[in-house]
Amino acid sequence: MKFAVYVPDNLEGPAPVLYILGGMSSSEQTFIQKSGFQRWAAHYGIIVVSPDVCPRVTFGVEKNEIEAKGLSFYVNAVKKPWNRNYQMYSYVNEELPSIIQENFNVNKDRQSIMGHSMGGHGALISALKNPGKFRSVSALAPVCNPSKTPDIQFILKCYFGDDTKTMEEWDATCLVADYKGPELNILIHQGNNDKYAEQLKLENFISACEKAGIEISVNIEEGYDHGFYFISSFMEQHFHHHSKFLCGS
Amino acid sequence: MKFAVYVPDNLEGPAPVLYILGGMSSSEQTFIQKSGFQRWAAHYGIIVVSPDVCPRVTFGVEKNEIEAKGLSFYVNAVKKPWNRNYQMYSYVNEELPSIIQENFNVNKDRQSIMGHSMGGHGALISALKNPGKFRSVSALAPVCNPSKTPDIQFILKCYFGDDTKTMEEWDATCLVADYKGPELNILIHQGNNDKYAEQLKLENFISACEKAGIEISVNIEEGYDHGFYFISSFMEQHFHHHSKFLCGS
Repeated sequence: MKFAVYVPDNLEGPAPVLYILGGMSSSEQTFIQKSGFQRWAAHYGIIVVSPDVCPRVTFGVEKNEIEAKGLSFYVNAVKKPWNRNYQMYSYVNEELPSIIQENFNVNKDRQSIMGHSMGGHGALISALKNPGKFRSVSALAPVCNPSKTPDIQFILKCYFGDDTKTMEEWDATCLVADYKGPELNILIHQGNNDKYAEQLKLENFISACEKAGIEISVNIEEGYDHGFYFISSFMEQHFHHHSKFLCGS
Repeated sequence: MKFAVYVPDNLEGPAPVLYILGGMSSSEQTFIQKSGFQRWAAHYGIIVVSPDVCPRVTFGVEKNEIEAKGLSFYVNAVKKPWNRNYQMYSYVNEELPSIIQENFNVNKDRQSIMGHSMGGHGALISALKNPGKFRSVSALAPVCNPSKTPDIQFILKCYFGDDTKTMEEWDATCLVADYKGPELNILIHQGNNDKYAEQLKLENFISACEKAGIEISVNIEEGYDHGFYFISSFMEQHFHHHSKFLCGS
């Protein structure tokens, strides 16, 4: 597995760390090349880790499931053959942080997570399934309710089979109802010209948060679509958000 | 030919325009995706035009000249078959500005030019061959003296044959000696970890400018290489430089 790490110059002591999860058809290179986050990471003194978005090796995948390659939804697959490599949730939440803590001077009590699209989903479920682990979470145009989204259900069935209950255990909107833990400090941006809005189902996530009494800051941005110009336009706001929780005393 | 245009929001009347020329193995997409210039173009109210770096159609090119494809050095080729399409100098200095002036609300008396590597060469020769046309010129790790650079001479021979005199008419360092015109307002950045330094020959350009009494601002930056992280790190400085000449009264 490849991952990208950005370490600002002139850090004094262990630094906070922000994990950034990419969306479909991206890799560990995408955020570091296209989002321009380095300016803000340097400004706030935050180490950034951006993993690849899925395993690149698969074994024995049937032709009719080929679409699920290059994705991951940051879950732990149960169904064969996907369960062998597609353990992205464990990778992002356990294996990768251990590697980072062993090799970089990070403060492991100060970590946050963000992501785009499928990676926004990864960020939200990581925060929701690990109360207190991340000081803040943010997402740009996140996939919010995949178990109720026909275009995505097909992919999830590759990882989980037809077991709807398991799917819901990996769905941010479903997880919200049972969340018990400290404030999540969620920030979300989405463009009002995002052609994937129907697959993202942000409105379901907002309703679930309201019902569960979870505070959430949502910004719908005029004219923006789903792409990397949208992402780079709001990097400053997202780093500012995380800095409030990562860099304070 | 494809080109990218960035038009800031909320312009009041005709805006100044900055042409940005890419280097080898890039296209009209590269600067707009990777440099993060939009923040600065928006800040200063500058329209940015970034053309593709070479013609994408060639006819009857011999196998031993195949390396010259995908390049252009922003010259007008003389030798067949290159002379049919490889007229990038005329394209960048005449055809493209006409298209821009007809289709966008630009102030044609306020234009500047910049570029990276091969595109830095294109920017310098465009300014040197057109006294007064550009208010300022800047370059990141520019190719400065191609007619004296063995690795590049081979490419130039495809475009010009063995005629050294013609090659020198398209060489920034050679052109400096005969420059007569208003201040060029040249800004150059180069990393001191640029593995192409020997092909760039910045020192020859600096000497030629000193001899000709042409003022030039050169910044050698510790640790930076030839790549896009170098470029994106100095976009702010280059836009600030151009804004002084483009946006003043």
